[in-house]
Amino acid sequence: VTGRVTVAVDAGGADLGPAEVARGAAMAVREHDVRILLFGAAVGIEPAPGVELIDAPRSIAKAPDLARVVRAHPDASVVAAVQAVADGRADALVAGGTTGAALAAGLFRIKRAPGVHRPALAMPVPAPRHPFLMLDVGANVEVRPEHLVQFAHMGAAYAELVLGVARPRVALLSNGEEATKGTPDLVAAHELLSAAAERGAISFAGNVEGFAIATGAADVIVTDGFTGNVAIKVMEGASAAMLGAVRDAASSSMRAKAGGLLVRPALRGVRDRVDPERQGGAVLLGLRKLVVVPHGSFGARGIAAAVGVAARGVREDLVGRTHAALEAGGALRRREASSAAPVSMPERP
Amino acid sequence: VTGRVTVAVDAGGADLGPAEVARGAAMAVREHDVRILLFGAAVGIEPAPGVELIDAPRSIAKAPDLARVVRAHPDASVVAAVQAVADGRADALVAGGTTGAALAAGLFRIKRAPGVHRPALAMPVPAPRHPFLMLDVGANVEVRPEHLVQFAHMGAAYAELVLGVARPRVALLSNGEEATKGTPDLVAAHELLSAAAERGAISFAGNVEGFAIATGAADVIVTDGFTGNVAIKVMEGASAAMLGAVRDAASSSMRAKAGGLLVRPALRGVRDRVDPERQGGAVLLGLRKLVVVPHGSFGARGIAAAVGVAARGVREDLVGRTHAALEAGGALRRREASSAAPVSMPERP
Repeated sequence: VTGRVTVAVDAGGADLGPAEVARGAAMAVREHDVRILLFGAAVGIEPAPGVELIDAPRSIAKAPDLARVVRAHPDASVVAAVQAVADGRADALVAGGTTGAALAAGLFRIKRAPGVHRPALAMPVPAPRHPFLMLDVGANVEVRPEHLVQFAHMGAAYAELVLGVARPRVALLSNGEEATKGTPDLVAAHELLSAAAERGAISFAGNVEGFAIATGAADVIVTDGFTGNVAIKVMEGASAAMLGAVRDAASSSMRAKAGGLLVRPALRGVRDRVDPERQGGAVLLGLRKLVVVPHGSFGARGIAAAVGVAARGVREDLVGRTHAALEAGGALRRREASSAAPVSMPERP
Repeated sequence: VTGRVTVAVDAGGADLGPAEVARGAAMAVREHDVRILLFGAAVGIEPAPGVELIDAPRSIAKAPDLARVVRAHPDASVVAAVQAVADGRADALVAGGTTGAALAAGLFRIKRAPGVHRPALAMPVPAPRHPFLMLDVGANVEVRPEHLVQFAHMGAAYAELVLGVARPRVALLSNGEEATKGTPDLVAAHELLSAAAERGAISFAGNVEGFAIATGAADVIVTDGFTGNVAIKVMEGASAAMLGAVRDAASSSMRAKAGGLLVRPALRGVRDRVDPERQGGAVLLGLRKLVVVPHGSFGARGIAAAVGVAARGVREDLVGRTHAALEAGGALRRREASSAAPVSMPERP
C-alpha cells in the first residue's frame, strides 16, 4: 500500500451507538494518519476531516441466521462496509461491534485467502503480567488438526508483525502439558506442529494448560473457537469477580476504606493496563483482507485503537506475510479445488 | 449407613507428603466424627486416635498409563484404598492428591453405578460472590449428549445434598446463550435438558457463557471434561494474575504501600473465601461409592475438608439419591448389557 491507508468502519452495531463510533473514527484520523469510510445511520453524526460518511441506516448486528441475512441485505451497514474493502475502495475493515455479522459478511464478500481452510478470530489478551494472543476465540466451533496448524502459523505471523513479538512461542491449549493430552484432533495437531518446529518453521512450545494465561508460557495460544470463546469469557469473568471482591474488601471497614483511598491510583493503573479497549479488539485472520473486530461495548478510544490495528496491519502487509508464513510452514491447503467447501457460520465472541 | 462413617484416605501422592495427609486425617477424626483407614508409607507418620494406618509404600501417583498400572499394582496405596471401599471396609474414598490414579482405580475396582454412562469429576468453585459446581472438570475429554444430561442430574443432586442448594439451577457452558449455540452435541443436550425441565425433572437455566462463573447465573455448570478442565485452570490463572497485579500495585509507591497495609486484613478475607482447600476438592460422581479428590497441593486442612465432604456424602446417601435423581429424570442408560463398554481414561485435573 502506497500513500494513506483507507479503513472502512461499520458503525451499525456498537452498543454505544453510531455517534460514538464516529468519534472514534475522527480520533483515529488524528492518531493514525488514515482516511475513514464510515458506514452507518448518518443522523446525528458530526462531520469530521478525513471521515467520509456513507449513510447506511440498516443494521443487522442483532439478526439471527446471519449467513442468509448478509446475502439478503447488501445495503446493511456492515455488508456495505465489507463491500468497500472487497472492491478495493478501502484497505481494511473495522466492524464496530457487529462481530457475528462482520464474520458472515467477510466470509461472503471478502473470501478466504487461497489455501486457508478457515479464518480464525484472534484476540490479543492484555493479561496483567504476560499479554498473549489467543485464537480461535469464536469463528469455528469445531476444527480439524490442519485448521489448528493454520491458526498457529497465522497467530505467529500476527504476533510478530502487529504485536511486535520476535519469534513468538506458540502453544496448544489442552488439559495437560503432555503431548498425549486432549482430544484425538488436538493430539494430531501437536504432532503436526512438532514436525513443523523440527523444520524450523515455527517456535512450538507444546501444550499449555489454562494456567498459562497468567504465566507467559506462550505468546500465542491456539485452540478451537468453542474452547477459546469460553476461555476468554471465563478469564474476563474471573478478573472482574476478583477486582469486585477487592473493591468490596476495600470498603468493608473504616481502616480498609482509608487504605483503599491510598491504593486507588495504583489500582487504576492495573485496570488501565488490562483494559481491552487499548488492544482494539479481535482480528479475523485468513481472509483476503484484514478485518478488525472491536468489542460491541467499546467506546471511541477502543474504535480508534481498532483502526490503528487495521492501519498497522495494512502497512505491514499482514495478509501477504501471513500467507507467506503459512506457505513457508507447509500449512497451506494443497488442493485449491476445495475452496468452495462450506464454511462454518461464525459465532459472536 | 448406621454408626460412624469410615473413610479410606490415600496418602500416596500428595505434594506435601504422607505426613501432611496424616495430619489432615487426624484433624478430620476430631472435626467430622469419622474413622479413617490411612493408606501410605508408614515411615514418619504419627499414630493418632481414630486413624488406622495401613503401610502401603508404593505410590503410583506420577505413573503414566494408569489404567495398566492400577491393574498391575494392587499393593499401591491408592489401589489398596480403593479396594477397601470396594470391599465395604470403608464407606468412601479420599484420594490425597492422586487424581488420575484415583479415577483409574475407582473405575477399575469400584465400577460405575448401574445405568451411568461415565463418571464425572465435579468441582465446587468458591467464586468470590457466587459459588457454583462445575462438572466435568477432567474425567472425560469427549462426551455425548446423554453424558451431559447425566452430568446435569448428578451435579444437581450433589449441589442439593452436599452443598445445600435448594432446587439448584443447572446450565450448559457454551459460546452463547441461545439454544442453537455450541457444538451439535451441546445443542442436542440442550434439547434433552429442556424436555427434562418441562417434565419438572430438573431446573434448567439453558446455556451460559464463560462470564457466568462470576454472575451466579447457575448453581451447576455442565460441560465436557476438556472444556471444564481448561475453564477451571483459566479461572485459577486469571484470579491469581489479578491478585498478583493488585499486590504489585499496592507496593508500587510509598502511598500505595501505606494503603496496602491498611487493606491487607480485608484482602486476606477475600483470599480465604476463595481458598479451594475449604471446599475439600473435586468429587467423582457416578461410581457405586463416593470418591473425593482433593487437589495434590492441599495441606492438612484441605484433606480434613475432603474427609468432611465424604462423610456428609455418605450420611446423605449421595450415591443412592444421585441414582434416584437420574432415574426420576429418565436419564439412566436403558440397556445394562453395555455396562462393560470401555470407559475413557481419566485426566488429571
